[in-house]
Amino acid sequence: MMNRIPILKLEQYLLASIQIELDDQTALSFQEDLLNRIRDTGAKGVVIDLTSVTLIDSFIAKVLGDVIQMADLMGAKVVITGIRPAVAITLIDLGISMEGVLTALNLEQGLSKLKQELEG
Amino acid sequence: MMNRIPILKLEQYLLASIQIELDDQTALSFQEDLLNRIRDTGAKGVVIDLTSVTLIDSFIAKVLGDVIQMADLMGAKVVITGIRPAVAITLIDLGISMEGVLTALNLEQGLSKLKQELEG
Repeated sequence: MMNRIPILKLEQYLLASIQIELDDQTALSFQEDLLNRIRDTGAKGVVIDLTSVTLIDSFIAKVLGDVIQMADLMGAKVVITGIRPAVAITLIDLGISMEGVLTALNLEQGLSKLKQELEG
Repeated sequence: MMNRIPILKLEQYLLASIQIELDDQTALSFQEDLLNRIRDTGAKGVVIDLTSVTLIDSFIAKVLGDVIQMADLMGAKVVITGIRPAVAITLIDLGISMEGVLTALNLEQGLSKLKQELEG
Protein backbone atom coordinates (compact mmCIF):
# COMPACT_ATOMS: atom_id res chain seq x y z
CA MET A 1 0.00 0.00 0.00
CA MET A 2 1.16 3.49 -0.77
CA ASN A 3 1.55 5.99 2.04
CA ARG A 4 0.89 9.68 1.62
CA ILE A 5 3.02 12.28 3.35
CA PRO A 6 0.72 14.90 4.90
CA ILE A 7 1.49 18.47 3.92
CA LEU A 8 0.52 21.19 6.39
CA LYS A 9 -0.08 24.79 5.49
CA LEU A 10 1.01 27.38 8.02
CA GLU A 11 0.69 31.03 7.00
CA GLN A 12 2.30 31.23 3.56
CA TYR A 13 4.43 28.14 4.10
CA LEU A 14 4.01 24.40 3.64
CA LEU A 15 5.44 21.90 6.10
CA ALA A 16 6.05 18.26 5.33
CA SER A 17 7.56 15.99 7.92
CA ILE A 18 8.61 12.65 6.52
CA GLN A 19 8.24 10.20 9.38
CA ILE A 20 8.30 6.92 7.48
CA GLU A 21 10.97 5.30 5.38
CA LEU A 22 10.21 6.43 1.84
CA ASP A 23 9.51 3.84 -0.81
CA ASP A 24 9.63 4.81 -4.48
CA GLN A 25 5.88 5.19 -4.92
CA THR A 26 5.44 7.24 -1.75
CA ALA A 27 8.29 9.54 -2.78
CA LEU A 28 6.77 10.10 -6.21
CA SER A 29 3.30 10.81 -4.86
CA PHE A 30 4.84 13.19 -2.31
CA GLN A 31 6.51 15.03 -5.17
CA GLU A 32 3.21 15.34 -7.01
CA ASP A 33 1.22 16.27 -3.89
CA LEU A 34 3.72 18.94 -2.89
CA LEU A 35 3.72 20.62 -6.29
CA ASN A 36 -0.09 20.56 -6.36
CA ARG A 37 -0.26 22.13 -2.90
CA ILE A 38 2.20 24.85 -3.93
CA ARG A 39 -0.04 25.67 -6.90
CA ASP A 40 -3.27 25.50 -4.84
CA THR A 41 -2.00 27.58 -1.92
CA GLY A 42 0.45 29.92 -3.62
CA ALA A 43 2.91 29.02 -0.87
CA LYS A 44 6.16 30.95 -1.04
CA GLY A 45 8.19 28.48 0.96
CA VAL A 46 8.34 24.82 1.94
CA VAL A 47 10.04 23.04 4.82
CA ILE A 48 10.73 19.35 4.24
CA ASP A 49 11.77 17.72 7.50
CA LEU A 50 13.84 14.54 7.18
CA THR A 51 14.54 14.04 10.90
CA SER A 52 12.97 10.60 10.91
CA VAL A 53 14.52 9.44 7.64
CA THR A 54 17.46 7.23 8.54
CA LEU A 55 18.60 6.26 5.06
CA ILE A 56 17.80 6.97 1.44
CA ASP A 57 18.71 5.25 -1.80
CA SER A 58 19.65 6.83 -5.10
CA PHE A 59 16.08 6.91 -6.41
CA ILE A 60 14.69 8.69 -3.36
CA ALA A 61 17.65 11.07 -3.32
CA LYS A 62 16.96 11.98 -6.94
CA VAL A 63 13.23 12.50 -6.28
CA LEU A 64 14.07 14.82 -3.39
CA GLY A 65 16.65 16.73 -5.42
CA ASP A 66 14.11 17.06 -8.25
CA VAL A 67 11.25 18.28 -6.08
CA ILE A 68 13.42 21.07 -4.71
CA GLN A 69 14.19 22.29 -8.23
CA MET A 70 10.57 21.89 -9.32
CA ALA A 71 9.29 23.85 -6.33
CA ASP A 72 11.85 26.53 -7.13
CA LEU A 73 10.53 26.76 -10.69
CA MET A 74 7.06 27.25 -9.24
CA GLY A 75 8.30 30.08 -7.05
CA ALA A 76 8.55 28.30 -3.71
CA LYS A 77 11.80 28.19 -1.76
CA VAL A 78 12.56 24.85 -0.09
CA VAL A 79 14.39 24.33 3.18
CA ILE A 80 15.45 20.80 4.08
CA THR A 81 15.74 20.12 7.80
CA GLY A 82 16.94 17.30 9.98
CA ILE A 83 19.33 15.66 7.52
CA ARG A 84 21.02 12.81 9.38
CA PRO A 85 24.68 11.97 8.84
CA ALA A 86 23.88 8.79 6.87
CA VAL A 87 21.52 10.72 4.60
CA ALA A 88 24.06 13.51 4.09
CA ILE A 89 26.69 10.92 3.17
CA THR A 90 24.36 9.29 0.63
CA LEU A 91 23.48 12.63 -0.97
CA ILE A 92 27.13 13.59 -1.38
CA ASP A 93 28.22 10.12 -2.51
CA LEU A 94 25.52 10.12 -5.17
CA GLY A 95 26.50 13.57 -6.32
CA ILE A 96 23.02 14.96 -5.73
CA SER A 97 23.60 18.67 -5.90
CA MET A 98 22.30 20.45 -2.86
CA GLU A 99 23.91 23.63 -4.06
CA GLY A 100 21.81 26.62 -3.18
CA VAL A 101 19.49 24.49 -1.07
CA LEU A 102 18.71 25.94 2.32
CA THR A 103 19.11 23.57 5.24
CA ALA A 104 18.46 23.83 8.94
CA LEU A 105 18.61 21.65 12.02
CA ASN A 106 14.90 21.32 12.71
CA LEU A 107 11.44 22.47 11.74
CA GLU A 108 11.38 25.74 13.67
CA GLN A 109 14.85 26.74 12.53
CA GLY A 110 13.82 25.85 8.99
CA LEU A 111 10.75 28.04 9.25
CA SER A 112 12.70 30.98 10.62
CA LYS A 113 15.28 30.56 7.87
CA LEU A 114 12.48 30.74 5.29
CA LYS A 115 10.99 33.82 6.94
CA GLN A 116 14.42 35.47 7.00
CA GLU A 117 14.95 34.63 3.34
CA LEU A 118 11.50 35.64 2.12
CA GLU A 119 10.43 38.38 4.48
CA GLY A 120 13.88 39.91 4.78
CA MET B 1 -1.81 -1.93 6.89
CA MET B 2 -1.84 0.61 9.68
CA ASN B 3 -1.09 4.22 8.91
CA ARG B 4 0.69 6.52 11.29
CA ILE B 5 -0.26 10.15 11.63
CA PRO B 6 2.92 12.25 11.64
CA ILE B 7 3.27 14.61 14.57
CA LEU B 8 5.33 17.74 14.04
CA LYS B 9 7.01 19.73 16.78
CA LEU B 10 7.08 23.49 16.37
CA GLU B 11 8.47 25.51 19.26
CA GLN B 12 6.64 24.21 22.34
CA TYR B 13 3.68 22.90 20.35
CA LEU B 14 2.82 19.71 18.53
CA LEU B 15 0.92 19.74 15.24
CA ALA B 16 -0.95 16.77 13.82
CA SER B 17 -2.82 17.07 10.57
CA ILE B 18 -5.06 14.10 9.89
CA GLN B 19 -5.20 13.80 6.13
CA ILE B 20 -6.53 10.28 5.79
CA GLU B 21 -9.81 8.72 6.84
CA LEU B 22 -9.09 7.26 10.26
CA ASP B 23 -9.58 3.56 10.83
CA ASP B 24 -9.76 2.20 14.37
CA GLN B 25 -6.17 1.01 14.55
CA THR B 26 -4.73 4.23 13.12
CA ALA B 27 -6.77 6.28 15.59
CA LEU B 28 -5.51 4.22 18.52
CA SER B 29 -1.89 4.40 17.46
CA PHE B 30 -2.28 8.15 16.93
CA GLN B 31 -3.56 8.43 20.50
CA GLU B 32 -0.55 6.52 21.81
CA ASP B 33 1.96 8.37 19.60
CA LEU B 34 0.60 11.76 20.60
CA LEU B 35 0.79 11.03 24.32
CA ASN B 36 4.33 9.72 23.93
CA ARG B 37 5.36 12.82 22.02
CA ILE B 38 3.84 15.06 24.71
CA ARG B 39 5.91 13.24 27.31
CA ASP B 40 9.10 13.25 25.23
CA THR B 41 8.92 16.89 24.21
CA GLY B 42 7.20 18.48 27.19
CA ALA B 43 4.87 20.19 24.72
CA LYS B 44 2.43 22.60 26.32
CA GLY B 45 -0.08 22.57 23.50
CA VAL B 46 -1.30 20.45 20.60
CA VAL B 47 -3.17 21.35 17.43
CA ILE B 48 -5.10 18.49 15.84
CA ASP B 49 -6.26 19.49 12.38
CA LEU B 50 -9.27 17.61 11.02
CA THR B 51 -9.68 19.62 7.80
CA SER B 52 -9.34 16.54 5.61
CA VAL B 53 -11.53 14.29 7.77
CA THR B 54 -14.92 14.10 6.09
CA LEU B 55 -16.68 11.74 8.47
CA ILE B 56 -16.08 9.91 11.72
CA ASP B 57 -17.85 7.05 13.46
CA SER B 58 -18.56 6.64 17.14
CA PHE B 59 -15.33 4.77 17.86
CA ILE B 60 -13.11 7.40 16.26
CA ALA B 61 -15.11 10.17 17.93
CA LYS B 62 -14.54 8.55 21.32
CA VAL B 63 -10.81 8.09 20.69
CA LEU B 64 -10.52 11.78 19.77
CA GLY B 65 -12.52 12.86 22.79
CA ASP B 66 -10.36 10.64 25.00
CA VAL B 67 -7.03 11.87 23.64
CA ILE B 68 -8.02 15.47 24.38
CA GLN B 69 -8.70 14.61 28.00
CA MET B 70 -5.57 12.48 28.27
CA ALA B 71 -3.40 15.27 26.84
CA ASP B 72 -5.01 17.64 29.30
CA LEU B 73 -4.08 15.32 32.18
CA MET B 74 -0.50 15.39 30.91
CA GLY B 75 -0.48 19.17 30.93
CA ALA B 76 -0.96 19.85 27.22
CA LYS B 77 -3.85 21.97 25.93
CA VAL B 78 -5.47 20.69 22.72
CA VAL B 79 -7.00 22.80 19.97
CA ILE B 80 -9.06 21.03 17.33
CA THR B 81 -9.14 22.76 13.96
CA GLY B 82 -10.98 22.33 10.69
CA ILE B 83 -14.01 20.44 12.00
CA ARG B 84 -16.34 19.93 9.03
CA PRO B 85 -20.12 20.18 9.39
CA ALA B 86 -20.62 16.40 9.06
CA VAL B 87 -18.01 15.76 11.75
CA ALA B 88 -19.53 18.38 14.06
CA ILE B 89 -22.95 16.77 13.61
CA THR B 90 -21.56 13.33 14.47
CA LEU B 91 -19.79 14.61 17.59
CA ILE B 92 -22.95 16.28 18.88
CA ASP B 93 -25.25 13.39 17.90
CA LEU B 94 -23.01 10.97 19.76
CA GLY B 95 -22.91 13.18 22.81
CA ILE B 96 -19.12 13.44 22.72
CA SER B 97 -18.47 16.31 25.07
CA MET B 98 -16.34 18.96 23.51
CA GLU B 99 -16.92 21.18 26.51
CA GLY B 100 -13.87 23.25 27.27
CA VAL B 101 -12.18 22.11 24.06
CA LEU B 102 -10.62 24.91 22.07
CA THR B 103 -11.46 24.95 18.39
CA ALA B 104 -10.37 27.08 15.46
CA LEU B 105 -10.89 27.27 11.73
CA ASN B 106 -7.45 26.21 10.58
CA LEU B 107 -3.92 25.38 11.65
CA GLU B 108 -2.60 28.93 11.99
CA GLN B 109 -5.64 30.14 13.86
CA GLY B 110 -5.35 27.08 16.09
CA LEU B 111 -1.72 27.88 16.82
CA SER B 112 -2.44 31.50 17.62
CA LYS B 113 -5.31 30.44 19.88
CA LEU B 114 -2.90 28.16 21.77
CA LYS B 115 -0.33 30.94 22.06
CA GLN B 116 -2.99 33.32 23.33
CA GLU B 117 -4.16 30.74 25.86
CA LEU B 118 -0.72 29.68 27.07
CA GLU B 119 1.45 32.75 26.63
CA GLY B 120 -1.27 35.19 27.63
